[in-house]
Order: sequence, then C-alpha cells, then structure tokens
Amino acid sequence: MYREQLTIETRGRGTHEITRQIQLVVERSKVVAGMCSLFVHHTSASLIVCENADPTVRRDLEQFAARMVPDGDPMFCHDSEGPDDMPAHIRSILTLTSLSIPIENRSCDLGTWQGVFLWEHRTSPHRRRITVTIIGDDVSA
Amino acid sequence: MYREQLTIETRGRGTHEITRQIQLVVERSKVVAGMCSLFVHHTSASLIVCENADPTVRRDLEQFAARMVPDGDPMFCHDSEGPDDMPAHIRSILTLTSLSIPIENRSCDLGTWQGVFLWEHRTSPHRRRITVTIIGDDVSA
Amino acid sequence: MYREQLTIETRGRGTHEITRQIQLVVERSKVVAGMCSLFVHHTSASLIVCENADPTVRRDLEQFAARMVPDGDPMFCHDSEGPDDMPAHIRSILTLTSLSIPIENRSCDLGTWQGVFLWEHRTSPHRRRITVTIIGDDVSA
Repeated sequence: MYREQLTIETRGRGTHEITRQIQLVVERSKVVAGMCSLFVHHTSASLIVCENADPTVRRDLEQFAARMVPDGDPMFCHDSEGPDDMPAHIRSILTLTSLSIPIENRSCDLGTWQGVFLWEHRTSPHRRRITVTIIGDDVSA
Repeated sequence: MYREQLTIETRGRGTHEITRQIQLVVERSKVVAGMCSLFVHHTSASLIVCENADPTVRRDLEQFAARMVPDGDPMFCHDSEGPDDMPAHIRSILTLTSLSIPIENRSCDLGTWQGVFLWEHRTSPHRRRITVTIIGDDVSA
Repeated sequence: MYREQLTIETRGRGTHEITRQIQLVVERSKVVAGMCSLFVHHTSASLIVCENADPTVRRDLEQFAARMVPDGDPMFCHDSEGPDDMPAHIRSILTLTSLSIPIENRSCDLGTWQGVFLWEHRTSPHRRRITVTIIGDDVSA
C-alpha cells in the first residue's frame, strides 16, 4: 500500500481537474497493476468523473446543479455560512466522496474521455484535502 | 482482511449516524493504516457522508429529497409497498451503496465535519445490514 | 488480485443487468472472501444497484431520470452528439462510476433484492467496457 495526500486550493465554485496529479501519485507508487482509491475529506466539495474534452460540459453541469439545488432556497434553514452553504452539502451528497479506479501498466485506466475532478461547491475559495491510496503489485508481470 | 456485519434498526425515514460503530470495527481490526469499505445490502436505504455538527443540515436534506422525489408521485407505477416505495429506490440510487474511507493511525481519517450515515428511505422502521471490510497492515510503522 | 474486462453491447438507453456476469468473474477468480470492485470506463453510462424483481422499478426510474434531466433542455450548450448528449453526462455523474461489493463464500454478497446494472444513458446502442477487480483470499477458512 502506498499513500499520498493532495491539497487543492480552489478558486470557488467549479470543477478542478486532478487527473494528472493522480497519475503522478500512481507513478511514484511504482504499482504496475492494482487500484487507486480517492477520498475527499469534506462535505461541501466532492469527486466526479466527467468528460474532459469540451469545457462546455462542465459549464452545463454547473448550471444544472444550480437549478437543481438553488442557492438561497427558502426551504433551507441551515444557512449560517451563506446561501451556498446547504446547497454545497446536498451537491456533495448527490455526487462522490470516494472513488476507486483500476491501475493497469503503471497508470489509472481511465476511458478516453474520462477526467477526474474535484468539484468545489462553495462560492468562495477553499483548501481541500484528498487522500490517494494505491493498492497493488509493484512487480512487472 | 477483517470483516464485520452491522445491523441497524431504523425508526423509519431519516439519517442514522454510524460513524462511531465503524470506528469501533476499525479498532477491533487492529489495522493501523489501510482502507475501510462499507456496503449496504438494500435498495431502499443508502450511505452518505454528511456534515455532522448541525442537525438542521440533515433536516434540510430530508426536505430537499422529499421535494426532488415526491412520495406518491403519479408518475410511479411501482407502489406495491406504498407511496414511499419507488422514491426509496430512487433516493438510494442517487446516493451511495458502497463507500471506502482511508484508515490512518488505527482510525477512519474523516474530515472535521464528516459523519457517516445510514439513510433510511422507507417511512416505516426496518432492520438494515451493512458489511464493513477492513484491508491494511496491522503492524506499527 | 484477479482482473477481467466485461464488454456490454447496449441497445440504447436503459438498464442492463450484469449481476450474473459479475458472479461468474468472482467464481473464476477462486476468491473465497474479499472485495469485488467495478469501474465503468465511460462518462455517458454508469453503474447502479437496483431492485431486480419488478421491472416496473427500472421503468419508473427511467421516467424519473428523463424528467429530472430532460433531453434537449435549452439550458444545455453541449449538444454536439444530440439532445441526449449532456443529459447522459449528468445522469452518469448523479449515479456511480465505481462500486465495491463484498465477496463471501465465493460470491458477491448482494442483498435479496439487489441487482447490479449498467445504465446506458445514450439513446443509441453503444459498446461499454467495465473492469472487474477481485481482491481477497483464495483459500478456504
């Protein structure tokens, strides 16, 4: 088992691609075949696997999330940190806190269009922590 | 590998914190560093990681889920167990059936505000089964 | 660790049960107790665990998803592959890309009503790839 922490400084609400950073952790682990598990240590930021070629996909996703869970919805009582407080928790719960990706040939075996993203749900910048755990064999076949 | 089953008696719809029960399984496993994987064996109850300090967060979440997937929605044909039957399946599918948390220093490395919850989606009480699997090293560094 | 790739030819939008195919991989792995991890290599098809007895559950689920994320919604700019392009990405993000199921007695320990499904979100048929990774002990207790 090999483990590293990633620290991501977000610029407020939006998706932040972390695919390359994860691939570098896999390389440093020297694992040839195995699993790469991600965990985000927050309840107002989450993980998604998303199309990574056309940036309009993530713009549309952001619009959709804003309509599905509106900031400042009068239904919400929990607003101590602002109108985006409760929506951030709900958006996190509807996406992923943990994610496991297969490793093949010393690299995460992602599909052609798959990118891994940290999704910041708060409107202000935050420092976010992700644990990357690599389990597998470090010998060539 | 170390494994235990948890049985949770729910009191009907709502979130049930299981963080402490999971931490006790990790302690009994004697694993120092590794992964803790949870799996809920049902299609009308699910797992979430949620803010665990202010109970209004989970009340707002419950209200939001009830508006997003209304009980008794005339769209639903599957209602053999009542108006909450199909919504319970959908709420489960939109959240988590499995979850993997890193273990550090003999404990689940959760963020400051992260709690793990079983979310019962049926309105009546149910007995729910969760499998906790611990993988890792049982020796100190 | 034991690994196999599944290739699923979908017939367009809808749920495709893969429980039996996964159980066969577990049998071939000869693992008695452990974990079975699934990963889908796409951003417009996803994994769900769903009630597998009454087919109206999955029909209702499909209707619900179509209402929650409407095809051709004028909000979406990303429509290069048609009105179901962006909805397919969002439906994938709201469900699962990876899933881990406990193995007990040489078989996935699913609940009585749990089936594992590949959910195709595009309206046209696609070839989808899933990696199944088995980790565990291959000796009897």
